Amino acid sequence: MANPSQHTTQDSPQDTAHDLVPLDLSADVVTLTAALCDIESVSLDERRVCDAIEAALVPLEHLTVTRIGNTLVARTELGRDERVVLAGHIDTVPLTKAPANLPTRREGDDLVGRGTVDMKGGVAVQLKAALVTEPSRDLTFVFYEGEEIDSEHNGLLHVQQQRPELIADADFAVLLEPTASQVEGGCKGTLRVDVTARGVAAHSARPWNGRNAIHAAADLLNRLTAYEPATVTVDGLDYHEALNATGIRGGIAGNVIPDECVVTVNYRYAPDKSPEVALAHVAELFEGYDLVELDNAPGARPGLDLPAAKAFVEALGLPVIAKEGWTDVARFSAMDIAAVNFGPGDPNLAHHDDERCPVSQLVSAEAALLRWLA
Amino acid sequence: MANPSQHTTQDSPQDTAHDLVPLDLSADVVTLTAALCDIESVSLDERRVCDAIEAALVPLEHLTVTRIGNTLVARTELGRDERVVLAGHIDTVPLTKAPANLPTRREGDDLVGRGTVDMKGGVAVQLKAALVTEPSRDLTFVFYEGEEIDSEHNGLLHVQQQRPELIADADFAVLLEPTASQVEGGCKGTLRVDVTARGVAAHSARPWNGRNAIHAAADLLNRLTAYEPATVTVDGLDYHEALNATGIRGGIAGNVIPDECVVTVNYRYAPDKSPEVALAHVAELFEGYDLVELDNAPGARPGLDLPAAKAFVEALGLPVIAKEGWTDVARFSAMDIAAVNFGPGDPNLAHHDDERCPVSQLVSAEAALLRWLA
Repeated sequence: MANPSQHTTQDSPQDTAHDLVPLDLSADVVTLTAALCDIESVSLDERRVCDAIEAALVPLEHLTVTRIGNTLVARTELGRDERVVLAGHIDTVPLTKAPANLPTRREGDDLVGRGTVDMKGGVAVQLKAALVTEPSRDLTFVFYEGEEIDSEHNGLLHVQQQRPELIADADFAVLLEPTASQVEGGCKGTLRVDVTARGVAAHSARPWNGRNAIHAAADLLNRLTAYEPATVTVDGLDYHEALNATGIRGGIAGNVIPDECVVTVNYRYAPDKSPEVALAHVAELFEGYDLVELDNAPGARPGLDLPAAKAFVEALGLPVIAKEGWTDVARFSAMDIAAVNFGPGDPNLAHHDDERCPVSQLVSAEAALLRWLA
Repeated sequence: MANPSQHTTQDSPQDTAHDLVPLDLSADVVTLTAALCDIESVSLDERRVCDAIEAALVPLEHLTVTRIGNTLVARTELGRDERVVLAGHIDTVPLTKAPANLPTRREGDDLVGRGTVDMKGGVAVQLKAALVTEPSRDLTFVFYEGEEIDSEHNGLLHVQQQRPELIADADFAVLLEPTASQVEGGCKGTLRVDVTARGVAAHSARPWNGRNAIHAAADLLNRLTAYEPATVTVDGLDYHEALNATGIRGGIAGNVIPDECVVTVNYRYAPDKSPEVALAHVAELFEGYDLVELDNAPGARPGLDLPAAKAFVEALGLPVIAKEGWTDVARFSAMDIAAVNFGPGDPNLAHHDDERCPVSQLVSAEAALLRWLA
């Protein structure tokens, strides 16, 4: 091997011997998915599953493992021309209570339970890929905590902030979030603004002494409903933009003409636009109204024109579509690393009480990835 | 005198000797207004001012005084052909704190302080009229508590519920709420409804999987803004109807297409309409939407075609206009007693920190009323 196995840890003193759950990476991908799910790891409670993955990876001599909190980065150092990140989060949303949707169980062709879709199935595929000692490109595996909650807890963000060199040298990234085993390229950006219609307060028995801000907001809603969102082709993929009110509020009392009506608008924009361009577009649409930017996260280009991405898509031979929702691929994009989403499981079942994944998708996702790395 | 003075009390045991404030009804109306204002009587704290008025009325042998809580009814029993109610509330809204707008003070031609407009000035005019021993028609004075807060505390309502015979025999009522010494006839009714636009929730990155209820509410607001409210002439007075959104709410989270948007609509309707007709009118306008009635208080006809009302207007020789806001005249209307608003003070200054009343209005309102009763 080009590099001897190394193992460094920071931020998280080890105290694992007492409850370490053994993880057998040689098991088939379905068994491995079930084993990962059965180690409950709701956000902020990822230590046990992180310990288990770490203990399974450390003996693999072709990998250099670094731990940051409950996030692991495992790198091959084979001197290949190309380096690819395979990333997945190890936390889940909370379990359904009665009945709890763990431990996992088989129902026909489905593996059922919390995490089977979002995204222990993808993590199992990563781990199977981690067993490949001579992959066709260098690999950087990221297993990270805190994806399902506020971004301050996001382990991928922590790596970017604290040890960027561990991922910054990659040419391409695959995020193994559920896509029903299609390839979903990049992601749209998301901007939220408060748009305010103003009026003059008055008693509602004598409205002619005031000006109704809610009535004024009719024009604002009419601009929204008349708006025709664009479909923008970026690197060959069609991103469907969307502009929607996600909130509205106005009114002081039952007998008062309100002097203010606030509409919260969410603009989901194609990754050809910067956050600044997106904001200017919305400001132009709502010219004449007060506008306050609440948050604005850029999208990610799929980068399907890059050799690494092309090779990935060709090797998998699967349909490629645009990712409509915002995902952590945007964090790679911010580091100028093209990224796609590819993982087993129907994203519409993520977070559902009845979360379940067809075992055939687990098997085919593993097979596609291994084919590409062969 | 036709009737010896009588005095009965119910509901409120007397315990007044220790802090009784003497009230000199022989003082001029401006001095009397100031004295009434200086006995603070914010809603639910009317006992002291009620005690003072009661103590001043009981010695008047031409009046029969009944106390219900902190509400007083004082009646002449002269066997006249006609009986008129003169009613006013004795509570005020809370004082302004820094600086407190009491005690009253003179500023040029104005008497300044809490209650000067709403409506201790009117109460002072009532008390001056109560001194007339041989009025041209029988009089029923009502001095009542709890008008500025929830109607369960309203002393006029308590009289209607507990001792209706004390007022039910009247032909006409004058409510001495501030009208800047004009005569304001009747009042509009008021209906509030919640109108709900419905949709289907979805992720805001994929809105085509849902239907935006806030966008659907655009049509609802367009119906509101396109609505042309009627001006309805009732008994010779023009009532300007009004239809307004007084509240709007919708939205679940910043990334969710909302499935519900609720608009609270207030319809102020002319007193030719019953509450049922008003509701049907609004339901027709918002056909296709869910509609929930929140509250619905009928208006009051001015009854200016009735002999008692005609005589009042002719004697005063003042301009007569429609009352646009809802007032307690509607409580008389519900008992089939025509009623008008007539009192000193600009209603736009009611509840203001800088509440103030020109002394000329106090004097002219008293003079007009005494002219009519002569």
